[in-house]
Amino acid sequence: MALNAVPVLHEIRHALHRLDETGESTVIDLSAIPFAPGDRQQLLEVLGNGEVEASIDAMGRTRINETGFPGVWLVQYQDTSGGEIATHIEITRCPSLLITPEPDVAESAALLAARLRS
Amino acid sequence: MALNAVPVLHEIRHALHRLDETGESTVIDLSAIPFAPGDRQQLLEVLGNGEVEASIDAMGRTRINETGFPGVWLVQYQDTSGGEIATHIEITRCPSLLITPEPDVAESAALLAARLRS
Repeated sequence: MALNAVPVLHEIRHALHRLDETGESTVIDLSAIPFAPGDRQQLLEVLGNGEVEASIDAMGRTRINETGFPGVWLVQYQDTSGGEIATHIEITRCPSLLITPEPDVAESAALLAARLRS
Repeated sequence: MALNAVPVLHEIRHALHRLDETGESTVIDLSAIPFAPGDRQQLLEVLGNGEVEASIDAMGRTRINETGFPGVWLVQYQDTSGGEIATHIEITRCPSLLITPEPDVAESAALLAARLRS
């Protein structure tokens, strides 16, 4: 296996243990790792694809893919023209971008109430 | 607004309040509601589209869309040929299909450890 992929995979393994034991999530910023050509691709091939894919459209698109290892997610931030801004591996039960922020729920109820009154 | 859409919208509004106050999620099975022609479409038009869309590929595809009301999600279950099995409105901060089940995290760590040893 390529030299740079192995330490990242070990970091992911540790992060999965931490998630399992304490519930704590981890973010690994792949954009910050000096991969040799092909190493990053090899890392992504080892991680593979899971069943879940998602996208968030807000000032550019963010693509989220569950990898073949449950709890390990690939999160790719793109600018409005589709260029890569950053790529993260998130070790979490659910990437935060897929979770409605708590204050938005109350706002949403107020919004729907107003819509029903109109 | 169409007769059948309004009670469902009120149910969603109550469910948003419950989610905000107690954290409790609600599922409304649209397939079980006897909509008149066009009513369901009108309901979905009022709900609109949010920023998040997702799909889960496992024995048929499930499509998940956040609506324009944060915390209100449209979840469409399809069979392997794309036909509708069920359509739910979920009032929740995140549909459970997008959350890695807790026991899968430990399995995932073991799987990655095995992969790193091989």
